[in-house]
Amino acid sequence: MADKQSTKPPSGTRDFLPGDVRRREYVIDVVRRVYERYGFEPLETPAFENIDTLLGKYGEEGNKLIFKILKRGEHEGTGEADLALRYDLTVPLARVVAQYQNELPKFFKRYQIQPVWRADRPARGRFREFYQCDIDSMGSTSPIVDVEILSAVSEVLVTLGFDDFTIRLNHRQLLAALLESVGVSAAGQSDTLVALDKLDKTGPDAVIKDLESRGFDHEKASRCVNMFASDAIRTTTRLPSPSVFAAANMSQLSRLHQDVPEASSILDEVQAILDMSADTQAAGHVLLSRSLARGLSYYTGAIMEVGVEGIGSLGGGGRYDNLIGMFLGRDVPACGFSLGLERIIVVMTERNMFKDALSLGSADVLVTMWPDADDAIRRDALALASELRAVDLRVDVYPEPDKLGKQLRYASDRDVQFAVIVGGDERAKKAVTIKDLVASSQETVARESAPQFIRERVDAGQRTKNPEP
Amino acid sequence: MADKQSTKPPSGTRDFLPGDVRRREYVIDVVRRVYERYGFEPLETPAFENIDTLLGKYGEEGNKLIFKILKRGEHEGTGEADLALRYDLTVPLARVVAQYQNELPKFFKRYQIQPVWRADRPARGRFREFYQCDIDSMGSTSPIVDVEILSAVSEVLVTLGFDDFTIRLNHRQLLAALLESVGVSAAGQSDTLVALDKLDKTGPDAVIKDLESRGFDHEKASRCVNMFASDAIRTTTRLPSPSVFAAANMSQLSRLHQDVPEASSILDEVQAILDMSADTQAAGHVLLSRSLARGLSYYTGAIMEVGVEGIGSLGGGGRYDNLIGMFLGRDVPACGFSLGLERIIVVMTERNMFKDALSLGSADVLVTMWPDADDAIRRDALALASELRAVDLRVDVYPEPDKLGKQLRYASDRDVQFAVIVGGDERAKKAVTIKDLVASSQETVARESAPQFIRERVDAGQRTKNPEP
Repeated sequence: MADKQSTKPPSGTRDFLPGDVRRREYVIDVVRRVYERYGFEPLETPAFENIDTLLGKYGEEGNKLIFKILKRGEHEGTGEADLALRYDLTVPLARVVAQYQNELPKFFKRYQIQPVWRADRPARGRFREFYQCDIDSMGSTSPIVDVEILSAVSEVLVTLGFDDFTIRLNHRQLLAALLESVGVSAAGQSDTLVALDKLDKTGPDAVIKDLESRGFDHEKASRCVNMFASDAIRTTTRLPSPSVFAAANMSQLSRLHQDVPEASSILDEVQAILDMSADTQAAGHVLLSRSLARGLSYYTGAIMEVGVEGIGSLGGGGRYDNLIGMFLGRDVPACGFSLGLERIIVVMTERNMFKDALSLGSADVLVTMWPDADDAIRRDALALASELRAVDLRVDVYPEPDKLGKQLRYASDRDVQFAVIVGGDERAKKAVTIKDLVASSQETVARESAPQFIRERVDAGQRTKNPEP
Repeated sequence: MADKQSTKPPSGTRDFLPGDVRRREYVIDVVRRVYERYGFEPLETPAFENIDTLLGKYGEEGNKLIFKILKRGEHEGTGEADLALRYDLTVPLARVVAQYQNELPKFFKRYQIQPVWRADRPARGRFREFYQCDIDSMGSTSPIVDVEILSAVSEVLVTLGFDDFTIRLNHRQLLAALLESVGVSAAGQSDTLVALDKLDKTGPDAVIKDLESRGFDHEKASRCVNMFASDAIRTTTRLPSPSVFAAANMSQLSRLHQDVPEASSILDEVQAILDMSADTQAAGHVLLSRSLARGLSYYTGAIMEVGVEGIGSLGGGGRYDNLIGMFLGRDVPACGFSLGLERIIVVMTERNMFKDALSLGSADVLVTMWPDADDAIRRDALALASELRAVDLRVDVYPEPDKLGKQLRYASDRDVQFAVIVGGDERAKKAVTIKDLVASSQETVARESAPQFIRERVDAGQRTKNPEP
């Protein structure tokens, strides 16, 4: 029956073996708990959408990266697609807000942690199936909303053990005013931002060349680059102390007041976000950064991006007050943030940030099977397993009548700390022998006290691995 | 910007609003915890597979129901598909076992809780995107494996609050022997089983007609039906007591020994499963049922299906000792079970089995915003929210300077029990006023004790809703 077909997962996707899933679940659980603490509620949408829902929402590049699903049945032969895999979580949210407008509260705050699919060329750290962890807050233009989002994202990262992250903050209308001030009209701003977005990566000279190729003369291109290449702090450098951050923000604000005095009301809004953040979990992490552009075209106000020293972006977001209107027919103010699960896990793995408890074995206890067990003995082993599970131990039962040594090696190889043996002697005395394969010790205890005996030792081990802070 | 495009989810799929997600997460969490307790480990695979991995694995009918994904880029125009959405969790598992054979333990026990997609015609309770909760145990032919699976599935259902479920048990080789005994040769058995599988639904006369249309003479068709229409208990009738079950199993076993004496070694295996189950969570739930056939062709041994009175199947499974070999090139014995999340949720909803705690509001507390708040007051509200979140309360902050009455109504409408008010008086006294919107009471407490004050009341409320058993 065997054929030669590949058993690898499709290009750009991954299988997650038990250890992988446990790490992912740990991170997702932290994200979920923090988002709940901020009053966000869970939403889930289908993996695919009607194709018209997605096409045209992500620009020409995006359209090409959407996975499209063939029509079924007699239409399959036409090669036409009527469905497409979710490309992000924001467009489905906009559809949901339109569809359920009468059931949703005025200020709808939702989180959504689900995979999205993009037919990008796979590369290190870039996948075709990856999870986004989104929060979005709809219905209010208040900067409190933006601050709550900055705080929630910060609390997620702090809870996961990050302390060296920076959230760069900028504002789309401020960018527009800055570009205007160096002579870039509204029509040319979008292209210019695409070029300027690469400033950190390629350096000023390359960006000037890029702008020249887009029709700027050298002087205008230089003015542009100088206007944006002036962040006091770059996230690629070592992370400064909170007071250095605060001073940098102050100085950036006053320079912006000089550079674009006509944008003072926007600067007031930005200052309010910075000031209010100081009393939240985002304190000491938010850095006003005039060069932050963010790729997506739908942002209309504050924009944000979180990065970790030497790693780059872990996620980003901002205010988009018009997108919901594409489905709803009337605009709804909104602000959101998307954390990328895969990047977070890559960094946490590299930095060894996962707790020891996550490297737990496949079970807490192995109930061994007495070699040449008859039916009664097998039944007894299963009953014992039930008793151990009743105190919430994770219990495996060895299924085959192999030699005891082989069974114990199996437990040991699988990082199962305890093995329980019930031989003829033990059975006669209503006792069990418990082997601790880590301590290489063993003890025979009354059968009825075995569950508690092991439970206490497992709990003690977990306390050692994860001491209270 | 508004256009007329539909904002409904695609046909056969659903959006899950917050209450829906919470109920789903509750069930998934129970399933996960029980499976872990049985030593199963989590696995996740990509949403799509290379199309060749799936085609030909589910029969001709299945091939038609697979969602196929168009090639991308220049190949899009060809209308060819190279990927396909996961149709079940078993074939991806078989691929994973082949791919990672050197990393996986000898007895690989995995659970997988993920959506699958089938282009079935949508109907009440039948969706195109639905979750399966699978456990599979590989590497051993011991009936202990089958019993552990019966026990784990039973423990899931008991933990969720079901007590009236029946797991029908049969054996593929027993079915073969029974069919042989009424003159159906191996070649015709597959078709015959398809017809007999409808016995419960359409009754004996319809099945006899069906068999006649497949070329059986009337007498042979009747013999077939009589041979299978003789289960002592039907799950569609009221659920009997465990002792009635045990008696029914005994009588069924002895009749089978009479009907197919040549199958005695298989009957011994079945009896071992029944006997051992009596010492597990499956006790009193397993019913030997000679008419159970199960649709899928890959089963080779014990087959099982769990049903609830008046509802029908919640899931099923069995032993398939050859499927893994399709990818691996050598056979690996395996036994698995798949619970359907959607059916479980439908029944639990109809029966009002979700705990009150799941109908919780969107947050525990609303921090109100003092009308005409200045920056300092807004900062103070955010700081208070942080303090409340530090004791793990779910805290919403009202973002707009609306009238207080409107803010309180908002909290009340959203089932948020507590609202915190910090007015000028309170601020001067370093106090906060806490309104209990359920009890219609209010109390002013020192600001520093507010978090604990609310935390205790929320905990007390949860204890009332969910008393310890």
